[in-house]
Amino acid sequence: MTSDLIQRTVSAIHPVSSPELQQAIQHRLDNLTKPRGSLGQIEQLALRYGLARGIANLKLQRKSMYVFCADHGITAEGVSAYPSAVTVQMVRNFVRGGAAINVMCRQFGIETAVVDMGINGPVEPGTLDCRIALGTRNWLHQPAMTEDQAVQSVEAGIKLATWAASTADVLGVGEMGIGNSTTAAAVFSAFSGIDPQLTVGLGTGVTADVLVRKAEVVRQALLAAVGGFDIGGMCGFLLGAAAQRVPVVMDGFITGAAGLMAQALCPHVRDYLFFSHVSAESGHARMLEFLEARPLLSLDLRLGEGTGAALGISLIETAVRIYTEMATFSEASVSNKPE
Amino acid sequence: MTSDLIQRTVSAIHPVSSPELQQAIQHRLDNLTKPRGSLGQIEQLALRYGLARGIANLKLQRKSMYVFCADHGITAEGVSAYPSAVTVQMVRNFVRGGAAINVMCRQFGIETAVVDMGINGPVEPGTLDCRIALGTRNWLHQPAMTEDQAVQSVEAGIKLATWAASTADVLGVGEMGIGNSTTAAAVFSAFSGIDPQLTVGLGTGVTADVLVRKAEVVRQALLAAVGGFDIGGMCGFLLGAAAQRVPVVMDGFITGAAGLMAQALCPHVRDYLFFSHVSAESGHARMLEFLEARPLLSLDLRLGEGTGAALGISLIETAVRIYTEMATFSEASVSNKPE
Repeated sequence: MTSDLIQRTVSAIHPVSSPELQQAIQHRLDNLTKPRGSLGQIEQLALRYGLARGIANLKLQRKSMYVFCADHGITAEGVSAYPSAVTVQMVRNFVRGGAAINVMCRQFGIETAVVDMGINGPVEPGTLDCRIALGTRNWLHQPAMTEDQAVQSVEAGIKLATWAASTADVLGVGEMGIGNSTTAAAVFSAFSGIDPQLTVGLGTGVTADVLVRKAEVVRQALLAAVGGFDIGGMCGFLLGAAAQRVPVVMDGFITGAAGLMAQALCPHVRDYLFFSHVSAESGHARMLEFLEARPLLSLDLRLGEGTGAALGISLIETAVRIYTEMATFSEASVSNKPE
Repeated sequence: MTSDLIQRTVSAIHPVSSPELQQAIQHRLDNLTKPRGSLGQIEQLALRYGLARGIANLKLQRKSMYVFCADHGITAEGVSAYPSAVTVQMVRNFVRGGAAINVMCRQFGIETAVVDMGINGPVEPGTLDCRIALGTRNWLHQPAMTEDQAVQSVEAGIKLATWAASTADVLGVGEMGIGNSTTAAAVFSAFSGIDPQLTVGLGTGVTADVLVRKAEVVRQALLAAVGGFDIGGMCGFLLGAAAQRVPVVMDGFITGAAGLMAQALCPHVRDYLFFSHVSAESGHARMLEFLEARPLLSLDLRLGEGTGAALGISLIETAVRIYTEMATFSEASVSNKPE
């Protein structure tokens, strides 16, 4: 079970390796009025950003945050401290601008879009309506969604990203949905404990291509079994943005689960993902380790919404500004270190 | 050796403990539309900022960065990769807006002031002239400065902070001066290896008050022996700002040396200091450990200038905005967690 759109998108994602471009960006970084490498990860961000965008003439003007919201049937099991009605209430809070993510996005000049992937209530004016259903089913007793819905949620994310990528230089993803950290934990366990690549076998003697295809089927079945519409939508969003060469800044544990899925569908997507922070959610450090990702920040955040991603976008903006606005040694008549 | 101004300033610095104020700030933080404490260190920043300012009605509008520049005679020993002429060249770069700190301060809306504590060249138009001499002497062979100069540099910092505090809600300190990381290392070793409190003794049987006074004398002699005008100026600046209840965001290793000195003169100053980051400069992690300070960021920065402090100011601004701009549960009609 996959779809033309998903396959087309995955095959449009290319690794960023370009020795010439890397050299050009590094050359400028090394000629700015500072000791080489002295801005540490800020310089690495400028390099990675340029490689993702495929240009040495960096610019970062338009920044957008997409907050994916959905309800989760698993809340019936009493897994959350808050009632599931809070999802709908918080969506309204986002639209009105009263939530933490709104505050941070205002500070950093980031446009905010609230994506309704399937919340259990009427469509709230001011949201992007991508809803698949009024929340998932309780995956303790039945698959969270049908395989069709799994594909639909990923496709909705891809379509949204294709548009979003045409209106922004960098994207952030965040989420809100009572119960979604439980769903993300299930996704993470499914991926890390029983990686499809290890569980699918040669069976009747399939070719390597078919083996890859089998793993893909299992991965998508996993999404249907324990996933959420928010996570599926973000998975598609990451793929769609990478296909358009627009970097996406990841938030915490739940966006990480979407990252796991996207990476399983297309390893190259990683070149376009920036991991903003390690959260206080206990599984997140382990997830980042599993992803071999080094986060930029460690501030004990555990709110979600994209709050860590907003801070990460601000750091990328710093990197791009450093790259474009700083004087070089020759421009400023500053003596460089003797070679 | 001390001075009336230094003593008056030190005695004007009060610890921030106020259970009522703390409760008022915490109460608002807990009623914002997010799980309690879910913004981690951002919430802690709001609390510490409010306690330092002495108000529950937080505001943060005016942000200023002071970059303390000076030359160091120790450069004659070949301790730096760059020629000492770079200090003067970089001061000009700061005034023209081409350095990393200028770029970051523009991004975050922070005013930048370049403080000439004693660079080896003519006064550069656009700098604040607080110069003590054309750089320190080479402290490998003689004291870096006279005791008078040590007092003058601290007093200059205090006077500057008194003015700066009247024009800003939060201050940042940074520095530039070829050779100043060597000087900072000497200051740190002097403080950590042979703490004056351990080296001064009861002698002829002095009172406890006199013992404190003796330790103070040794501390100031240390500054004269191995210090720098930039470090002395920043030490005074930290004291002066704390006396006015304006928080100061620390940068890296060299501002940390000034923090060590200020804390030795007045332990309460710590309530007003925010440590922005741990740098890639090898001694900095050890210094923060010695100070029992937890830095906000770890981005492998090792440039100085205040670049880490600028990022720290941006995080404090985030904290204050979260505190003031977010909707409460009742304002947003969001169900709170059942108690």
